Amino acid sequence: MTQLYIGNKNYSSWSMRPWVLMKQAGIAFEEVMVRFDSFDADSEFKHTILQINPTGTVPVLKDGGIVVYDTLAICEYLAETYPEKQLWPADRARRAQARSACAEMHAGFTSLRNHCPVNIEADLREQGQLILRNQPGVRTDVDRLVKLWGGLLESHGGPMLFGEFSIADAYFAPVCTRIRTYGLPVPAPISAYIDRVLELPGVKAWIEEALAEKEFVLFDEPYRLRR
Amino acid sequence: MTQLYIGNKNYSSWSMRPWVLMKQAGIAFEEVMVRFDSFDADSEFKHTILQINPTGTVPVLKDGGIVVYDTLAICEYLAETYPEKQLWPADRARRAQARSACAEMHAGFTSLRNHCPVNIEADLREQGQLILRNQPGVRTDVDRLVKLWGGLLESHGGPMLFGEFSIADAYFAPVCTRIRTYGLPVPAPISAYIDRVLELPGVKAWIEEALAEKEFVLFDEPYRLRR
Repeated sequence: MTQLYIGNKNYSSWSMRPWVLMKQAGIAFEEVMVRFDSFDADSEFKHTILQINPTGTVPVLKDGGIVVYDTLAICEYLAETYPEKQLWPADRARRAQARSACAEMHAGFTSLRNHCPVNIEADLREQGQLILRNQPGVRTDVDRLVKLWGGLLESHGGPMLFGEFSIADAYFAPVCTRIRTYGLPVPAPISAYIDRVLELPGVKAWIEEALAEKEFVLFDEPYRLRR
Repeated sequence: MTQLYIGNKNYSSWSMRPWVLMKQAGIAFEEVMVRFDSFDADSEFKHTILQINPTGTVPVLKDGGIVVYDTLAICEYLAETYPEKQLWPADRARRAQARSACAEMHAGFTSLRNHCPVNIEADLREQGQLILRNQPGVRTDVDRLVKLWGGLLESHGGPMLFGEFSIADAYFAPVCTRIRTYGLPVPAPISAYIDRVLELPGVKAWIEEALAEKEFVLFDEPYRLRR
């Protein structure tokens, strides 16, 4: 059976993307959780994950003898393995737009990613106000998200970015949790989109399991001393 | 006709990837050069590129009404638009590996990218020795490249990473120029692969045009005062 190696659900934004995608699309898989202890070379995490993935990161998809070790590559692999699931938009122009948006997410929004790490169980809204005040890069990233999502929702009519659920929504799902965790203000149509994403069964399932973890991973907690 | 918007050939590593891919695969396109003056909001470059791409970056592919604005998305778009060109490896497992390697390049190797920016005409081999001495992250990135390329060349038998030329080789072509510009030492089989990449007609054409530019773009020149 297809296996998906992931990190802690409360923290691992990259793991969340393909997990949510497969749950939401009804693709069966076995989850292999590799808990974050640290990212040091001698950590249990690195020791375990390096046996399957030479880059030492999660997520990794293992499908028989095929190992796919990067989120975007995993999504493309799933899209071509399960064409009936229409993981990318069926329309060619929308598909090109969706791939552009995901590639932008894959390498971009670094200020938001660095200053607002995913932490599903935490309430960091006060910290979020400080971050917005002190980090202009985070404001720029949020502005870009608002413009990107707003334009797509308007031109395709919602409820998801390209009409129906697609890889793009899975790709931005962790960003939706970030915006809530840090209380980052966004216009009403964007907030409504975030609500719809957080209500997707695949996303809800991830969040529920994240909340059940109740672990405190120090290196993923720049803003808390304890749970 | 398909248009590809690119930046200066001497400097723009991201522009190089789809340009080389299309040249090498024999896909006709019109080149639209948007010269780098600066990346400030009021620069001519930003003014021009923002009219077509809201992220304000090159490369951008424009195909009729379809605008694809990120390198990996452009490559995927070309792969599905020209299936007869086999831009990805035909074998499913190799294709998954190739996508993993490109996604890794898309978001990774940041030390190498930051400290050794592409500068095709320059000879920065002395600077390269300093960088290797002072920047452990660059050494880590080069080690990873050697392992990645070495493993692929060995398991697929060369001459390119996945046997025949594919998107993966176009994706790593700017890295091959970096290794030469900065004189970064690599084992003989890796050096031979770099030579083969630099001899590909699509890559040679890019390099010749880069050398013909004879422009000095200050913000892309951390190590030179003049040409």
